[in-house]
Amino acid sequence: MTYTATVVGANGFTGGELCRLLVGHPNFDLVQATSRSNENRTLGHAHPNLRDIDLRFSSPDDLKSVDTLFAATPHGVSMSDIDRFQDAADTVVDLSADFRLPAESFYDDYYDGHSCPELLESAVYALPELNREKLSGAAFIAAGGCNATATILGLLPLVENGVLDGDEQVVVDVKVGSSEGGASGGEAASHPERSGVVRPYAPAGHRHEAEISAFLGLDVAFSVHAVDMVRGASATCHVFPEEPVSKADLWQDYRGTYDEEPFVDLVAGGGGVYRYPEPKSVAGTNRAEIGFELDPESERIVVLSAIDNMMKGSAGQAVHAANIALGIDEKTGLTQRGLHPVGAP
Amino acid sequence: MTYTATVVGANGFTGGELCRLLVGHPNFDLVQATSRSNENRTLGHAHPNLRDIDLRFSSPDDLKSVDTLFAATPHGVSMSDIDRFQDAADTVVDLSADFRLPAESFYDDYYDGHSCPELLESAVYALPELNREKLSGAAFIAAGGCNATATILGLLPLVENGVLDGDEQVVVDVKVGSSEGGASGGEAASHPERSGVVRPYAPAGHRHEAEISAFLGLDVAFSVHAVDMVRGASATCHVFPEEPVSKADLWQDYRGTYDEEPFVDLVAGGGGVYRYPEPKSVAGTNRAEIGFELDPESERIVVLSAIDNMMKGSAGQAVHAANIALGIDEKTGLTQRGLHPVGAP
Amino acid sequence: MTYTATVVGANGFTGGELCRLLVGHPNFDLVQATSRSNENRTLGHAHPNLRDIDLRFSSPDDLKSVDTLFAATPHGVSMSDIDRFQDAADTVVDLSADFRLPAESFYDDYYDGHSCPELLESAVYALPELNREKLSGAAFIAAGGCNATATILGLLPLVENGVLDGDEQVVVDVKVGSSEGGASGGEAASHPERSGVVRPYAPAGHRHEAEISAFLGLDVAFSVHAVDMVRGASATCHVFPEEPVSKADLWQDYRGTYDEEPFVDLVAGGGGVYRYPEPKSVAGTNRAEIGFELDPESERIVVLSAIDNMMKGSAGQAVHAANIALGIDEKTGLTQRGLHPVGAP
Amino acid sequence: MTYTATVVGANGFTGGELCRLLVGHPNFDLVQATSRSNENRTLGHAHPNLRDIDLRFSSPDDLKSVDTLFAATPHGVSMSDIDRFQDAADTVVDLSADFRLPAESFYDDYYDGHSCPELLESAVYALPELNREKLSGAAFIAAGGCNATATILGLLPLVENGVLDGDEQVVVDVKVGSSEGGASGGEAASHPERSGVVRPYAPAGHRHEAEISAFLGLDVAFSVHAVDMVRGASATCHVFPEEPVSKADLWQDYRGTYDEEPFVDLVAGGGGVYRYPEPKSVAGTNRAEIGFELDPESERIVVLSAIDNMMKGSAGQAVHAANIALGIDEKTGLTQRGLHPVGAP
Repeated sequence: MTYTATVVGANGFTGGELCRLLVGHPNFDLVQATSRSNENRTLGHAHPNLRDIDLRFSSPDDLKSVDTLFAATPHGVSMSDIDRFQDAADTVVDLSADFRLPAESFYDDYYDGHSCPELLESAVYALPELNREKLSGAAFIAAGGCNATATILGLLPLVENGVLDGDEQVVVDVKVGSSEGGASGGEAASHPERSGVVRPYAPAGHRHEAEISAFLGLDVAFSVHAVDMVRGASATCHVFPEEPVSKADLWQDYRGTYDEEPFVDLVAGGGGVYRYPEPKSVAGTNRAEIGFELDPESERIVVLSAIDNMMKGSAGQAVHAANIALGIDEKTGLTQRGLHPVGAP
Repeated sequence: MTYTATVVGANGFTGGELCRLLVGHPNFDLVQATSRSNENRTLGHAHPNLRDIDLRFSSPDDLKSVDTLFAATPHGVSMSDIDRFQDAADTVVDLSADFRLPAESFYDDYYDGHSCPELLESAVYALPELNREKLSGAAFIAAGGCNATATILGLLPLVENGVLDGDEQVVVDVKVGSSEGGASGGEAASHPERSGVVRPYAPAGHRHEAEISAFLGLDVAFSVHAVDMVRGASATCHVFPEEPVSKADLWQDYRGTYDEEPFVDLVAGGGGVYRYPEPKSVAGTNRAEIGFELDPESERIVVLSAIDNMMKGSAGQAVHAANIALGIDEKTGLTQRGLHPVGAP
Repeated sequence: MTYTATVVGANGFTGGELCRLLVGHPNFDLVQATSRSNENRTLGHAHPNLRDIDLRFSSPDDLKSVDTLFAATPHGVSMSDIDRFQDAADTVVDLSADFRLPAESFYDDYYDGHSCPELLESAVYALPELNREKLSGAAFIAAGGCNATATILGLLPLVENGVLDGDEQVVVDVKVGSSEGGASGGEAASHPERSGVVRPYAPAGHRHEAEISAFLGLDVAFSVHAVDMVRGASATCHVFPEEPVSKADLWQDYRGTYDEEPFVDLVAGGGGVYRYPEPKSVAGTNRAEIGFELDPESERIVVLSAIDNMMKGSAGQAVHAANIALGIDEKTGLTQRGLHPVGAP
Repeated sequence: MTYTATVVGANGFTGGELCRLLVGHPNFDLVQATSRSNENRTLGHAHPNLRDIDLRFSSPDDLKSVDTLFAATPHGVSMSDIDRFQDAADTVVDLSADFRLPAESFYDDYYDGHSCPELLESAVYALPELNREKLSGAAFIAAGGCNATATILGLLPLVENGVLDGDEQVVVDVKVGSSEGGASGGEAASHPERSGVVRPYAPAGHRHEAEISAFLGLDVAFSVHAVDMVRGASATCHVFPEEPVSKADLWQDYRGTYDEEPFVDLVAGGGGVYRYPEPKSVAGTNRAEIGFELDPESERIVVLSAIDNMMKGSAGQAVHAANIALGIDEKTGLTQRGLHPVGAP
C-alpha cells in the first residue's frame, strides 16, 4: 500500500532528510514539500542529493490533503498549526519538541510553556524501542530529541532490568555535530567559529533532560558539547549502580532489550579501531550502536551510545514510527548502510 | 541471475567498499573476502559498516572458484597473481593500476615496467561512459584511477565534440581526499599531519596522466593536491579552446554525451550553495557531477568534475562495469543516494 | 618611538587580527577599536585570544585623533569614510578593496565603480615585496587581497626575470579557507555546508584578477576554490614559458628576488612530509612559502605559494607596510612562529 | 643568564614543540636536538615551523654536556637512560610518564612497573600551580600528562577550598586531539580513520587517573574520547558536592586559587560565542581556561577546563617548570598569543 505524504519545512536539514527517506520508500509517495523561502524552487536547490527529484517546494499555507504529514518546523510552529496539520492528514508526525513531552509541566520547566496542552496526551513519543505498541495505529506521533534518543537508548536496558531505578547517580556527557543547529546558521555556527571546537554549549539545563526524565524516570546530570562533525550524537553515560554488576549480567540485560531490535547494534569491544560505538559508524543510517565498559575502580558502568542525529535522532526515527503506525514493515526505507572510511559526516 | 563473487584484498578501503556494494547487490553473492592480516576475523572487524555481515576474511592463498573476482590489491600484486585470479573466476575485475593502461610503454614511462604486457590488450578499461560496448561480455576488466576518472569524465564531451583535439592547452588541477592513500597509513597520512592540508603531493608527473593520454588522447598539465576530506576527488580542468565556444554550444555538447548516462549529472549553475559540482554532493554514491563556466577574459572553459574516489573512482566503477559485462541492468546495486548535510565524507 | 593606533571594524576577523598584532607590537599603542554591534563590550567578547586586553569597542562614529588608523571595514565603507579616516590619522592603512587598485577602470570592470577615483593614485599597494620603496613615508596604504597576494608572490620572480612578460599562458588555481568570507556568516559559510568542501566558488571572474593584472601586468586564468580550513590561501600557478627554463635558472631567479626578503621562504623540495609550500606551515605567521616544480612533459612550471590569508594576505601585510611607512624595523611585531603539528588553522 | 639546552627525542611532536619554545626563549640556547631516524637532517625537515633554525638532529647516543636536558622520549626510555641524562645536564626535565608519579605502586597499578623506583621521590611534578615552591631549584622535573593537567587545574580550587575532600562523586569526561597520540602514526591515527571521530578510546582505566589520585587525592571516574582536532584537551568535570555551594562562593574559590597565576584564565560565562573554556581559544599558548556552571537540578558543579595538550599539557608546562627551577621569570618564552579565528589547531 502507498501513502501520500507531505513534508512541512522541507527546506531545513531535518525536512530534507525526511524527503530523502520518503522518495526512497516504497510505501510513501511524497506529493508535497513546503518551504516559504524556496517556494517554487526544486528540492535540489536546497538539497544537492535530491537533484533528480521532480518536485518543487510549495507554500506551507496551502497544504494538500494527504495520508501522512511530517512537520519539520522550528519549535513553536506545530503548536500553532497543529489543527491545520491534522486537517490535512490522517497521520501527523511532528519532529519538533512541541508535542514530544507528555505533560504541560515539562513545557513550563524547560520551554516557554505550551499553548495547547490538552493535545499532549494524544501524541505518542516516536521511539519504537520504547513505544512500539503504542505506535501501532497512532495518528499523532512526536519524534524525540536526538541527544535524548542517544541517552535513552543507552540507559533503557539498565532501567528495564532494574539496574537503575531512579536513585542512582547518572552523568550523561553528549557530543553532537553541527547539523543539530539546523540550516539557519548564525555566528556560532559559522565554519570559522564552529570548526575544530570542543564547545560546552549546554553544560547544564539542556532541554532534552526533560525527555529522559519523562520516559526513563531518571534525573540525569546532563551536559552537551559541540564537536567537529556535521552528523552524529554520542552519549557517554557514567552510571553508578547501587549494587555491583557483572559484565556478563550487563550483556544479558542489553541483549535482552535489544536482540530483536532491527536498528540497535550492540558493539561488544574486542580489538580493532572500531571496538566501541562511534557516530562515524552509523552516519547516514538509522542504526544506533550501544556498548559499555565496566570500570572496577569507580564501580561505574560507562555506557556508550552513538546515533546519526538526523536519522535515528530525528527523521529516521520519524519514518520508523510512521512505518509502525501504518502497519508497514518497520525496516522499510531505512536499511541504508553506512560508509567506511568516512570523514566527518 | 546471481553470480558468486570474491573480493581479494578486502581489508583495504577499496576492498571494503566492494564488499559493501556486493552484499547489497541482488545479483551478486559475496562468498569470499580475503585478507592476510585479518584472516579469520569478521568483515566488521575492519569495516564497521559491515558488522551485520556473516562472513570472515580468508587467506588470499586459497581462492574459491567463483563467477567473478574483484582484486583490490596494491599495485603489482595483480601482475603477479593474474593467472590465479583468472583460474578462480570467469570474470576478473582488477582495481589496481596493473592492467588499466593499454600499452607497455605507459608502464615504462609512469610505472616500473610491466611483467606480462601481453595481457594488456585483453583488459577492458572499466569506465562505462567511455567503453560501454567493449565492456559487454568482457572477461577481464581494469578499473580506472580516481583522478583520471574525474578528469576523463570532465573532458570527454569536449573531445567527442571536437572542442579538444589534442593541440590545445589543458591544465587539470585535482583535489583529493585521504582515502586515496589507502588503509596502510604512514606519517604523511597521520591525522595530525594530514588534517587541514592543502598539500601539493604531485605537482607534476602524476601517474594518472597516462590514462588521460591513453583514453582521451590528451597530454594535459596535471597536478594533484591533498585536501581535508576523506572521500572525494574534484578535477578543475582549465581548457583553452582554439576556437571560441558559446555556453549554449557547450551545454549541447555535454548533454549530448551525458543525457543518457545514468551516473553523470550535469550541474548547471543557477543560484544556491550547490551551484557547481562538489565531492560532498556525490559522496557515498556512484554519481559524477559535471559542470563548467566560461571565462570570457581568458577564453577559457573551466570544467568542474566531482566524484567519490571510492565509488565512481574505484569500487562503484568496478561494479558498474561488472554489471555491464554480465548483462545485469547497469544501475543495479549502485543507486545509493547521498546525504545532505554531510561533513567531510 | 610609539604610534597611537585605531582599528576601525575591529569586530571582524581582519580587525581582530590587526588588534592581535598591534597589542603585541612595541611601536604601536592601540587606543581605539571600533565596532557598532559590540560597542562597549570588551575585545575579548568577540576575540577570545584578546581576553586579557583592557580595551572596549567604541563607536566608529567617534574617531580619536591618532597617528595611524587601520580600516578593516567591508568593501565600500572606506570609499565613503576616507575623509573621516584621513582627518583622524596621519597614516591610513585600508584593508578593503576600496583603494588597492591603481585606476578607476579596474573598479568599473570588477567592482561597482568608484566614488572617489581621484584618490586612487595617492594610495600605495601594501605588498612590500613589490612596493617597499613607495611605502617608505607613505600616508595612505591599501593592503592587497589574499588570493592576489599569494599569486603575486608566486609569480613575481618570473616577471622580474623575464620568464613571464605577459604573453604566456598562466593558470592560477587557488584554494582558500573559510576565514576569507569574514565573520558575518551566511548559509554557505555555515559549518554543515562549509565543512569538508571542495567548492569552486569563483571558477572565473574573481575580483583579485584585477590586482594581478595591475601589479604584474599579467592576465592570468584565475579560479578560486573553498576548501576545509579556516586560515590559509594556497595558489598553484601553472606557467607555460615561451622558452624552456632550467630548474637551476629558476632557483636563481627566485633566490634573486627573495633572498633578502624577511617574510618569504623558498621551500626547495627534498624529502619529508613538508617538501612543498603549505598553508599549514605558515598559519598564524606573516610568512609566505614559495616553491615550484618543473614538469618536463608539459613544459610547465608549477609554482606553489602558501600564505595565511589573515596575515601575509591581510593584517600582517598591513602592519608590515605600516612598519615600513613609519620607519620602524619592518619585522617588528611580525615574527610569530607557526605551530607543528597543527590541524586546520 | 643563558642556559644551554638539549632536547632528546626532538623528532616527535613534543620534542618539536620544546625546540620551538627554546629557540624563542631568551634564556635558553638550544645546542642539541636528537633524533635517531632523522640524524643529520635539519630540524625543519621534521618541523616545517623550524625551517629557519640552523641546527641538525644528532644521535641520541652522543649527548653533549649542557645545563638543561629535556627528554621527550616514549615512555620507558627515560627509565633506562636517566643516568645518561643526569650525567649530561645539571637539570633534567622529563616529559614522559616515567617519573611523574610519586610512588612505585602507581607504576604497578597503571603501568608495567618501574625499573628505578628509588628515583621517584627525587622528581618534582612540573605543574607550577600545584608545585611552584618545590620546583624552585629542582634538578629533576617530570611533566604531567595532558589529560591529568586539564583535570587537576579544573578541580584544584575545589580541593584547596574543601569543596572536594575525596568522598564526593566526580566524573571527568575528557576530549583530546590527535597530537596526543604522537608522530608515530598507526591505523587508528590515520586521517581516514581518525577524521571526524568521537571515539571513546579509554572509557575506563586511563593511566592519567593515577596523577589525579596522586596529586589531588581524588579517585575520579575518568573517561577519555578522541575528537576531531589536532591540539587540545578539554576536561568536563561533573562534581557532586556534599554540601550545596553557591556560584559566588565558587567564584571566590577559583579566584583565590588562580588570580595570581600567569597562565590560568577564568572564563566567566557572559554572552557571545566563547563564553566557556575551549581548546581553540588556548591553542598554541601555555594558557589554561577554566570555568564552571552550576546545575541546580542535579546539584552538580560542571567544571570546564581547556588546554593545548602540547603546551600547558606538555612542552609549555616543562619550560614553565624549568623557568621556575632556574630562577628565570616564569612567563619567559611562554607568552605566545592564540589566534582567532582558528580552525582545528
